[in-house]
Parts: sequence; C-alpha cells; structure tokens
Amino acid sequence: MADLKAQKRQKFEHAFEVIRDELLAHFASNGMPKDAQEWYRKNLDYNVPGGKLNRGMSVVDSVEILKGRALTEDEYFKAAVLGWGVELLQAFFLVSDDIMDASITRRGQPCWYRTENVGMIAINDSFMLESAIYYLLKKHFRQESYYVDLLDLFHETTYQTEFGQLIDLITAPEDHVDLSKFSLEKHRLIVVYKTAYYSFYLPVALALHVSGVKAIPNSPKDPFTIASEILIPLGEYFQVQDDWLDFSGTPEQIGKIGTDIIDNKCSWCINTALAKATPEQRAILDANYGKKDSVAEQKVKDVFYQVGVPETFHKYEEDSYKKIIGLIETIPEGGLGADGEVKLKREIFKSFLDKIYKRQK
Amino acid sequence: MADLKAQKRQKFEHAFEVIRDELLAHFASNGMPKDAQEWYRKNLDYNVPGGKLNRGMSVVDSVEILKGRALTEDEYFKAAVLGWGVELLQAFFLVSDDIMDASITRRGQPCWYRTENVGMIAINDSFMLESAIYYLLKKHFRQESYYVDLLDLFHETTYQTEFGQLIDLITAPEDHVDLSKFSLEKHRLIVVYKTAYYSFYLPVALALHVSGVKAIPNSPKDPFTIASEILIPLGEYFQVQDDWLDFSGTPEQIGKIGTDIIDNKCSWCINTALAKATPEQRAILDANYGKKDSVAEQKVKDVFYQVGVPETFHKYEEDSYKKIIGLIETIPEGGLGADGEVKLKREIFKSFLDKIYKRQK
Repeated sequence: MADLKAQKRQKFEHAFEVIRDELLAHFASNGMPKDAQEWYRKNLDYNVPGGKLNRGMSVVDSVEILKGRALTEDEYFKAAVLGWGVELLQAFFLVSDDIMDASITRRGQPCWYRTENVGMIAINDSFMLESAIYYLLKKHFRQESYYVDLLDLFHETTYQTEFGQLIDLITAPEDHVDLSKFSLEKHRLIVVYKTAYYSFYLPVALALHVSGVKAIPNSPKDPFTIASEILIPLGEYFQVQDDWLDFSGTPEQIGKIGTDIIDNKCSWCINTALAKATPEQRAILDANYGKKDSVAEQKVKDVFYQVGVPETFHKYEEDSYKKIIGLIETIPEGGLGADGEVKLKREIFKSFLDKIYKRQK
Repeated sequence: MADLKAQKRQKFEHAFEVIRDELLAHFASNGMPKDAQEWYRKNLDYNVPGGKLNRGMSVVDSVEILKGRALTEDEYFKAAVLGWGVELLQAFFLVSDDIMDASITRRGQPCWYRTENVGMIAINDSFMLESAIYYLLKKHFRQESYYVDLLDLFHETTYQTEFGQLIDLITAPEDHVDLSKFSLEKHRLIVVYKTAYYSFYLPVALALHVSGVKAIPNSPKDPFTIASEILIPLGEYFQVQDDWLDFSGTPEQIGKIGTDIIDNKCSWCINTALAKATPEQRAILDANYGKKDSVAEQKVKDVFYQVGVPETFHKYEEDSYKKIIGLIETIPEGGLGADGEVKLKREIFKSFLDKIYKRQK
C-alpha cells in the first residue's frame, strides 16, 4: 500500500521533470541569458515539487476514477500537466504569501525570498510560476474544445484565492490584534476563498474537463455545480481540522509547532471561542491573543478549553461528515450523466472525504 | 487640438469608472466584507488611472484607424475595456516593481506599498489588478470568436514582461554593481521583453483582434507578425530615448530627475559608453557607476560625453527612424488584407512613430 503510494508519487514527480524542461526550453528559445536560465530552473525546482502534492495528484486520481480504468501514457501526462498546474498555482501563492506574512521557513527549508541573492526578486519569480501554467495549458491543450474552459477555471480560481488572501490579510494582520474584526462567518469566507476553491474544487473541475464532462449551464444537474457544492464544504471542513490540529496537535503528531495563537491568525478555534466566551473570558482573549509570548498563549488555550472548543470541534466534525456524505449521496449510485458518457461518480468525493475524516496530521 | 486630446482622455477615463464599478459589484456579489470592498476600490483608484494612459488609449485610437470611422458607443466601450486591460496589466507590474526596486514615489505620489497600512499586502493587491483583466475579458468578450486569442495574447505578453523583469533584476541589482554583466545585447533583450511587448505590440494586437483581423499562421503576410516586426523595434527605440532623456534631460524638461546612473540601471547610455570606452575610461565607469554620490555621477557623465554618447544617440535616432519607416512601407499603401475586410494600415504605426520621433520628454 505504502509502496503503491510512493510509486504514484514518483510517477507524478517524473512528469514534473518533463514539464520543467519544457518551460526551460521555451525560456532558452527566447534568447534568455544563461544566468537567467539557471535562475528560473532554481525557482522551479525550489518552489514547485517539494510539497505533499495532494492537490496535484488528486487531478490524476480523479481522472482515473471518472474513466474507471488505468490511463494511457498520453492521458496520464495530460492529467499530470493539469495537476502540476494546480501545484504551480499553489507555488505562486506560497512564494508570495511567505513575503506578505514575513515567514521564515516553508516545507522545512528557508522561504525562497530568504535565500541568497533572491529577496524581493521572489515577487517576479512567483509571477513566472503563475505564467508557466498558461504556457503549459497552451502547449498541451490549445487544440481541445475545453481549452477555454481550463483558462476560465484557472482565472476564476486564482481571483477567488486572492479575494480570500485579501480578507485574511486585512482581518488578521500579524502586528495588530483586533478581535472585533473576527467572526465565524469571516472565518468561513476566508477559508472558502483562500483555500477551498483552489485545493478542492479546482483539481476535480480540471479532471472533469479533461475527461470530457460538459457543463450544463443553469441546471441543478450541472456536474460542475454539484462538484462545487460538495467540495467547498469539504474544503471548509479540511481547513477547520487544520486550525484544530494547529491548536491541539503535538509537534510529533503534526510535524510542526502550532503558531496560530501567537500569530493572530483568524482560526476556527479563536472564532469558536469568541462566540462562546463570557465577558471575562473575552477580556482574557483580547489581552493575550496574538502576543509573542508563551504565557499569553497558554492563557488563550485555557479559555479555549473552558468554553469547550474541543467538544465543539468533535461535534463539528461529525456534523460535517454527515452533511458531506448526504451531499455525495445526491449523486445517483451509478453516477450522474448520460449512458456511454463519462459520469460524475460518488467515489471521487468519497476518496477525498476518506483521506480527511478524523485525520490526525 | 489640446482640447480634443483632453476630451479623448476624459472619455477614456469615464470608461474606467464603469469598469471599476463592474469589478467592485462582482467583488461585493461574492459576499466580500465592506472593509475589503473599500480596500479594493482604493487599490483600483490609486494604481490604475493616474498615468499618461498612452498605452490604453492607443487601443482605442488603433481601432478607429482600422475601422476608418468613428466608433459606435458599444465599439468604443469594448475597445476601452481592452485599453484598460493594458493599463491594469501595467498597474500590476508597477505596483510590484516598486516593491522589488524599493522605489519611493510613483506618478508624483508615494508608491502604493508605502501608503498607510498597505505594506506587503500590495503584493496581493497587484495580483488582483492582474486577475481583474481576465474577469473583464470574460464579461465582455466570452461570446466572441477571438476571446481565446485575447487570453493567449495577455498571457504571452505577461510572461514576456516577466522574462524582461527577471533579466533586468539579476543584471542590474541596485546594490551590487558589476558592469561586466552589461552589454548592448543584454540591454536590447531587457528593453524588448520588459517594455516593448506590453507597451507597443499588445495594444495594437488587441485592436486587431477586436476589429476582426484574423491571424494567418506561418505566413509572411500575417498581420500580427508584421505588426510585431514594426512595433518591437519601435518600442526599443522608445526605451533608448527614455534612457537618453534620463541622462540628458533637465528636470524642467522631463518632469523628474534622472537617476539611472546612481541607481545602477542597465541603460542604453552606459552600455554605449562601455562599448566605446578605453581601459582608462572603463576604470572610471567601474569605480563610479551606481554610486549614491553626485561627484561619482558627474565622473560617469564626463565619460559619456568623452566617448560620444550624444552623437551616437543622434545617429541611432536617425537610423531607427529610417528603419522603422522602411518597415512601415512594406505595408501596401491601401492597407494589407482582402477587400471588404478590415485592413492593416500604415497609419497605425505612423501615429506611434510621429508621437515618439525626436520627443523631448
């Protein structure tokens, strides 16, 4: 099982090498100098392939489920290009987010903008990661009837993620705590826009397009609408878990030290606590949230326990699971779509949910 | 004459108000909070409309020339949307370039990232200016057969500009002078990629698309190829003038104080001087270029005069003019294209050249 997973990852990583070389060959063919070619190669290698790759690989997995069979080499590579498109989009966001958040490390290494001689050039480097997506889409999909749908989808998802990043940045600046700006509704908006669209809806929508599934505009049976109605709540649930694990997980368990409280993050935990706090507890949160100080952090954690954040989370988790299962089961058991055509299948969504439900890291 | 120009500008600026309101209405319709709506409005108003608007308005002007008549209201607005697309693209670049260059002012006001509470949020703000382009293109052009061509064109031009910015940043970092990295060829690459494509080719290519001109792939008569072959040298000539004026223009004349020498810019003047300098003069340039010091700056200027930068510029200007006129005259006098269709006309390119030739600011 673990072997199969490692093999899948290796195959996906191999596709990156091909894609990276295509990008570099195109760059060189424009007469770009050697030092710029080296630079772009480093930018791509440092920032794109080192993550968990869940988002990118879920495009390939989803296409396999939709087609109901192993993919040909050509089908695999096209799905992988789209998967790497999602990873490039994420790299574009992460490289720039790290500058905006003044972060120190990412994926266990210094953030790109903090590496030697890079600094603010990282901003332009992030742009080139984004532009690479459209170069690849044109190279591999220009002839397809759904090419324009891929472009529209990447554009819309990018814009949505930027909306989420904006609300997050102005709601929870690291250096100015104002809990009156927080609310569970604000949290939902941030999570849905900043994370759920690009991490959950985008990979599946890409898989639908490349599998030949067509949109049915303004119909309740539109596969893209149905996918979105399942995947956005799923992405929301995923991010709430992330916030919960940042608060409750041990470093051994989650592989990092949670810093949401000291970083003034607009997390699900603080918003849940705010909704339940007495005036006295609220005063403690106001006085201690977002402070670079472990005593203050502990005071916040104490309030989280007092108001029942853990119990609330466990109930949220059960409710979310049931709700999402309910949404998945609105899809007919045999799949949604005309016979002989590629159908939208429950399994796509179940495979996401299974990976996420009650995860501990 | 001045009145007509002011009227044209006013009409174009009015279109921005409509476009800005469309962007804000869409943003609000996504349920974005009031403070985020305010923020986006400020971002748009501060960064998009305050420049010379030459690039944006040249889309409208070119469409008028191509059609050979005044535009209907609807035709005007569509051309203006594309023109504001160019201005949005430029705003995206300028907001982020100012951070990368650590600039202080832009268009006579503080750079956006230096205004109150903005800081590095400006990076995400620049992204939203870019994404706005694709929202507008979809809203106004999704039904057009050339919609996908508009997307490809914006993508390619964006990528090209990023290439140019990368070479510029690694060739001429403000804090590390190494003139051995400079050359006239490097300068040409930077200028063509960083400026000429988006400032000269993009507006005309957009005008061609919206006027219904079709590409003829792999043909020497392809209107887009011909336009590019004229506009890229024209953009190069424009930027060389810019570099020349930065060195030779008085503040009264050019409206700013030239800082290319003290900022270690890879300008046409230094590259011309490097190509002509004796070893002694080269030593003076190495020792004094890029220093924040007016005595050092004067020593560099002295060498520029000694090696004949002014004479070389005037000869370059004459040669460029003749070359570009020659290229324009490869287009038949009656225009290029089938009768009854919109033809590529000399006048488009002449109107650019007339505005630029021997300009003093």
